[in-house]
Amino acid sequence: MSTPFPSDLEIAQAAEIQPISDIAAEAGISEARLEPYGKNVAKVLLDETTTAENALKKGSKYIVVTAVTPTPLGEGKTATAVSLAQGMGKTGRKAMLTLRQPSMGPTFGIKGGAAGGGYSQIIPMQKLNLHLTGDFHAVTAAHNLLAAMIDNHLHHGNELNIDTRSISWRRVLDVNDRALRNVVIGLGERMDGVPRQTGFDITSASEIMVILSLATSFDDLRERLGRIVIGYNHDGDAVTAKDLKADGSLAVILADAVNPNLLQTLEHTPALIHAGPFGNIATGNSSIVADYVGLEHADYVITEAGFGADMGAERFFNVKCRVSGLRPDAAVLVVTVRSLKSHSGLFKIVPGKPLPEDMLKESPADVEAGAANLLKHIEIVRNFGVQPVVAINAFPTDFESEHQKIREIAEAAGARVAIHRGVAEGGAGATDLADAVAAACDDHSELVYTYEDSDSLETKLEKVATKVYGADGIEVAPAAKKQLAQFEQLGYGNLPVVIAKTHLSISSDASLKGAPTDWALPVREVRLAAGAGYVYAICGTMRTMPGLAKSPAAERIGFDEKGTMVGLS
Amino acid sequence: MSTPFPSDLEIAQAAEIQPISDIAAEAGISEARLEPYGKNVAKVLLDETTTAENALKKGSKYIVVTAVTPTPLGEGKTATAVSLAQGMGKTGRKAMLTLRQPSMGPTFGIKGGAAGGGYSQIIPMQKLNLHLTGDFHAVTAAHNLLAAMIDNHLHHGNELNIDTRSISWRRVLDVNDRALRNVVIGLGERMDGVPRQTGFDITSASEIMVILSLATSFDDLRERLGRIVIGYNHDGDAVTAKDLKADGSLAVILADAVNPNLLQTLEHTPALIHAGPFGNIATGNSSIVADYVGLEHADYVITEAGFGADMGAERFFNVKCRVSGLRPDAAVLVVTVRSLKSHSGLFKIVPGKPLPEDMLKESPADVEAGAANLLKHIEIVRNFGVQPVVAINAFPTDFESEHQKIREIAEAAGARVAIHRGVAEGGAGATDLADAVAAACDDHSELVYTYEDSDSLETKLEKVATKVYGADGIEVAPAAKKQLAQFEQLGYGNLPVVIAKTHLSISSDASLKGAPTDWALPVREVRLAAGAGYVYAICGTMRTMPGLAKSPAAERIGFDEKGTMVGLS
Repeated sequence: MSTPFPSDLEIAQAAEIQPISDIAAEAGISEARLEPYGKNVAKVLLDETTTAENALKKGSKYIVVTAVTPTPLGEGKTATAVSLAQGMGKTGRKAMLTLRQPSMGPTFGIKGGAAGGGYSQIIPMQKLNLHLTGDFHAVTAAHNLLAAMIDNHLHHGNELNIDTRSISWRRVLDVNDRALRNVVIGLGERMDGVPRQTGFDITSASEIMVILSLATSFDDLRERLGRIVIGYNHDGDAVTAKDLKADGSLAVILADAVNPNLLQTLEHTPALIHAGPFGNIATGNSSIVADYVGLEHADYVITEAGFGADMGAERFFNVKCRVSGLRPDAAVLVVTVRSLKSHSGLFKIVPGKPLPEDMLKESPADVEAGAANLLKHIEIVRNFGVQPVVAINAFPTDFESEHQKIREIAEAAGARVAIHRGVAEGGAGATDLADAVAAACDDHSELVYTYEDSDSLETKLEKVATKVYGADGIEVAPAAKKQLAQFEQLGYGNLPVVIAKTHLSISSDASLKGAPTDWALPVREVRLAAGAGYVYAICGTMRTMPGLAKSPAAERIGFDEKGTMVGLS
Repeated sequence: MSTPFPSDLEIAQAAEIQPISDIAAEAGISEARLEPYGKNVAKVLLDETTTAENALKKGSKYIVVTAVTPTPLGEGKTATAVSLAQGMGKTGRKAMLTLRQPSMGPTFGIKGGAAGGGYSQIIPMQKLNLHLTGDFHAVTAAHNLLAAMIDNHLHHGNELNIDTRSISWRRVLDVNDRALRNVVIGLGERMDGVPRQTGFDITSASEIMVILSLATSFDDLRERLGRIVIGYNHDGDAVTAKDLKADGSLAVILADAVNPNLLQTLEHTPALIHAGPFGNIATGNSSIVADYVGLEHADYVITEAGFGADMGAERFFNVKCRVSGLRPDAAVLVVTVRSLKSHSGLFKIVPGKPLPEDMLKESPADVEAGAANLLKHIEIVRNFGVQPVVAINAFPTDFESEHQKIREIAEAAGARVAIHRGVAEGGAGATDLADAVAAACDDHSELVYTYEDSDSLETKLEKVATKVYGADGIEVAPAAKKQLAQFEQLGYGNLPVVIAKTHLSISSDASLKGAPTDWALPVREVRLAAGAGYVYAICGTMRTMPGLAKSPAAERIGFDEKGTMVGLS
């Protein structure tokens, strides 16, 4: 971005924000369902109308925004989703966004925030990037109360005969704190508990965060909380939150968090911000109930799935839609010139450092050299039976010839294509994209799952690896095979699967760019998320608690001498 | 209480609640200063009028509610404060309450909640006892970000040369979790941080919670955050939050939390609920800014100080009033028949077990046998130059003759006395108390501190021990003497002091009832709270992270089959 372009925070602070009650009224959300949190944010209360049936009845269009395999810098997926929603408004269509809530931890780490960018942002961005309405805090509190009840149970005699070595329920905090990854607790004297090794994850990695995102109602949330498996007893039986009598209290703690949060874009498009599960070990999708509310009120509901189409979108189709009963009408594939140049394998991008100089030179050939990745993602979307729309997120440093090259490649693959300049121009820069997406929605989509509920867990993993990722097969470690058998024996064989792998390659090897072939997915370990309702396979080193950089954003966030908040971006 | 009396939660749920905007309008709080959090709670935004000067200008009366030395069951101090405020309303006076926010941890532990009792409660009690507007969560987040920045600093080379053994900044969570009292962090591999021993306290024990309560403005809060001392470098110099460049981010995290929360009593008296520092190691008082807002708008502002007059009220006078510049007009001393019977030394009360049967028999003699404690607390209040009013919190199991005995004792000591039945009858049961307090406010009070800023730290501790507690002197351990000298050398000698001792006796020995004499206060260790602005002496075993009981309230909190919240009390 050229120097005189204002910062995201400056744009957000200069924005004219509308009272959230006006946004709600415009969207047809009744006053009675609105719980204000300040003047510019409100919760939309779930009620008996918040169901899949009602969401489907209106015939609204349901669009998921996904992307090619991203560079470490990200490709502007949220900015594109916001641009598209604003573009829908500019072209006279009634749209609503449903997005994940950003995690506070990374706000003070590298990123300084996550709310779109430039003239395609969610506001008030200071609220969005901090506490918002406290849903993450509620997840943290519920998660840690369950942990305290586990250790309290051990302390008071362990009546349930829990095998302490099997306890998989860790603690969570919404802060980047590497020193909490591995800890020993219960030290001190006899009255200070039972010593054991455990650790902390970031709150977005909590199973309760996934439960919040996948629950179809508050009753469903309560039942899922009760089903959480925290470990096993010495007979190998699962020990649940219900066994510990914790489910009622967890539900009480989450009673407000279950309601989605209403905010707005810079152009006053309503945006429901709700839940924020991790994209690598979890589903990486916003909440089902927010989508229900959106489809009940808008003609176009635009949601976003984390990372590339192999990651968040695969789970959107195979897990979220399976649970919600909703069917997408189009999938937007975000692509940038720099992402395809990166997939050429000719350059190395390092976060926090400037792009390699050669990457900024005009070169359609370098773009074409990375085309395999885009083509693979188009194929992934098509295989789910959904209409793809390739959205080129234009940067000021791009060249027309490079955009043209992407258009040729995607159109040759039969996809609709549109360039958007939403970051620089807002909705006015995304009217072509809005038209292309609307046309795709009028075309035929019919969701096809990659696997059946009745497939074995191993078959499910294999089908995702081969049919989605393009692997030759999977290599399941003996310990993982044993775990899968145990899960099936305990009655969890019908659950869908999530594959926890790197997001920086379609394969499980982050260094492989483009569309890797001739590889097998190594399944090292599998874990059960019984409350969320899936089994996940660990394929690589998964970090569930980030660290802070040497000079983190936290050192620059604060107030200037005029009392204006600075440092968020 | 007799069996047909409804539970606190039932009374609260059956209450007619007024829209908080009506409560604010009635109190003269302008619409522009009101940030709604749902329909029944709002934050009152601080502005340039929120100052000591403005608070004093109106000449409103300022009343602190304290108590005799409590039994382990508590003597209904909050219930009395609420009763008094409601009684003020019934007698045509314009009152406002300023109270601490209850901590979520204990809500799921033994207590199930804290919001007054019976017909003298703060509503909505479900909000009050859970997240409210997220202030505790903000304190937790700010506290733990600073902790993460400390360990991140160590991980990246420890430029400030921090002596890791000197780090006194622990982490906090608002949950009763004994297993976190003593932990080792930073285990794992090289990239997982620097191993060291530390621990977690409950959020109400965070220095940031005290800062929130003692800050006189947002600017003052920011400066106090920067002054927090987290430990020392190898040269013995203090290392502050500002040195770690954390103060800006901490302030950003606390930007909403600095504004007091407006709720109402069952009879619609406005109640500002704000901050909740621990009563044993910290100040145990609600926020200064809430008192400023209250005095600006009401004729009588009623606040509460934790535990007995030797504890919370001593800090209210010597620390909170010193910082705020406010001057109390009366102190209400809550007393119960059971508390004085307990101070007779004839009975043993155990929390969670029924009272000894003999204690429920009519016996003015047993009441008189415990009178020394009441008389000592009247003397404590008088020595601060403030008018005492003894409030007898009547229980259904009390006898008229016992109330009469308390009245005789207190009146003989020159104190005003009133019986109230606010728990059973609401404000109508507290009109006598309201009249007595109003009369006391019209009498002469002139606050006298126990010590001067210029006294040495050791002299300050000695003066509190001898002049307030009635000790013969103090016994400072050699290590504590050295620490006091260090604090004075570092420039902290002018700070006030807090004495962390048991609340179950005026002495430092919980087993000594009545008004102990012939004892000396043992000062084992002293600590610095440079951000909060005081030095505190550890006199006894102080627990800063509670545990859960074998069958905690958390097992009973939840929803019934009709979806109604149950188990809070």
